[in-house]
Amino acid sequence: MSGGASGGWLAIAGLGPGSEALVTPEVTAALAQATDVIGYIPYVARVAPRPGLTLHPTDNRVEMDRAAHALRLAAAGGRVVVVSSGDPGVFAMAAAVFEAMEAGPADWAMLDIRVLPGITAMLAASARAGAPLGHDFCAINLSDNLKPWTLIARRLALAAEADFAIALYNPRSRARPDTLDAAFAILREACAQDRPVLFARAVTTMQEHLRVVPLAQARGDMADMRTMVIVGSSTTRTIPRGDAAPFLYTPRSAP
Amino acid sequence: MSGGASGGWLAIAGLGPGSEALVTPEVTAALAQATDVIGYIPYVARVAPRPGLTLHPTDNRVEMDRAAHALRLAAAGGRVVVVSSGDPGVFAMAAAVFEAMEAGPADWAMLDIRVLPGITAMLAASARAGAPLGHDFCAINLSDNLKPWTLIARRLALAAEADFAIALYNPRSRARPDTLDAAFAILREACAQDRPVLFARAVTTMQEHLRVVPLAQARGDMADMRTMVIVGSSTTRTIPRGDAAPFLYTPRSAP
Repeated sequence: MSGGASGGWLAIAGLGPGSEALVTPEVTAALAQATDVIGYIPYVARVAPRPGLTLHPTDNRVEMDRAAHALRLAAAGGRVVVVSSGDPGVFAMAAAVFEAMEAGPADWAMLDIRVLPGITAMLAASARAGAPLGHDFCAINLSDNLKPWTLIARRLALAAEADFAIALYNPRSRARPDTLDAAFAILREACAQDRPVLFARAVTTMQEHLRVVPLAQARGDMADMRTMVIVGSSTTRTIPRGDAAPFLYTPRSAP
Repeated sequence: MSGGASGGWLAIAGLGPGSEALVTPEVTAALAQATDVIGYIPYVARVAPRPGLTLHPTDNRVEMDRAAHALRLAAAGGRVVVVSSGDPGVFAMAAAVFEAMEAGPADWAMLDIRVLPGITAMLAASARAGAPLGHDFCAINLSDNLKPWTLIARRLALAAEADFAIALYNPRSRARPDTLDAAFAILREACAQDRPVLFARAVTTMQEHLRVVPLAQARGDMADMRTMVIVGSSTTRTIPRGDAAPFLYTPRSAP
């Protein structure tokens, strides 16, 4: 990356779902040139320490502080990488950085800033299960930290009416043990009860676990903070394969 | 990858949007082990020839023949990579392979098959523009080759009602010069006229070109077959940056 007037730059990088084999060469190169790496503790832990590199691990829920810190370091000449898991543009740090930019000094918009995409969780989960997102689909963040539940409920109902396959990010947390069950209740009102639901936990890591159940049997406690949930559309199909989880795919055509 | 009983395997791999810096190491490793690479001519052209590797470039619109060919080669012991651009699970070859599997011999389901995810066009385009997909969003394929236009129109209207940011794949082709204008007409009925629309052509290649216009001024002829179109949600914002295309992002929170 080329430096701005200060020589500094900011890359907002996606580390992918977990496996190092899914980190793009572009991200690896940015990390090799960085003076500072900023992010949530478990993501910064994926970056190897080396001389000349300062790691800035921070707790969750301080996204705006983290984003402003990164912009200040880049403005001062740092070569800064903000790391997210998955893709930084999907429910992650990229939007937070642009929010901080708008709230900050006007010249922050002229910094050398690039978003480096990564393999987002829904695409990693989809790949491990087959191709459930092979036709039109949507992605909804189930966390109601930053939006009202009424909006989430409305989007779920409209997504079912549109017959999208539906990827649910942040389906459940300790603070929100009930949102995923509430989402399933909304979908059960609109969708056939045999609609396949994929629970894909910690994909591409040693803890990976895949499970496919019909919507009628889907329960919130089948997911945790590391689980991606994908609800098929009306055309999504399963292909049994012995003892392994079935393949799940959505055909390219729709009637 | 481990071989099945025949020693053969099939990987359905995503090459990303164009830049080699966005090809995952997992895909690079699969290509290095392959005996056969199968896909649409311009994607196979991205794979370097070498001794022991047979390239099988095929024309567009023969996805099912290509998929069945790949399965037959893997069943016969080949180490086969089917290549797509972007992510193979998003409007690409993975669904076609599973369709061919269901239509073929039952033991094809027991082959060693893996989908290797890639950076899909909407995430590459989003990254180059900022973070327009930073909140809930959907992806709709505008091609009516495999689904009726009435279904596409219905999904567009419901996506606008749900206030998703909307990524439009295959927005326009020579055979369909009018579908994108028809889509904009539907969205103009439901959305504010200043909603930002991103036209991102050939991202991460030498031909990359980004343009952001308000929905009122968006026209179908601003896109071609290599363009990704992303329509912002009601909360999507732009940040001017001199002569360059503005940053475009959707905040994490919604009212």
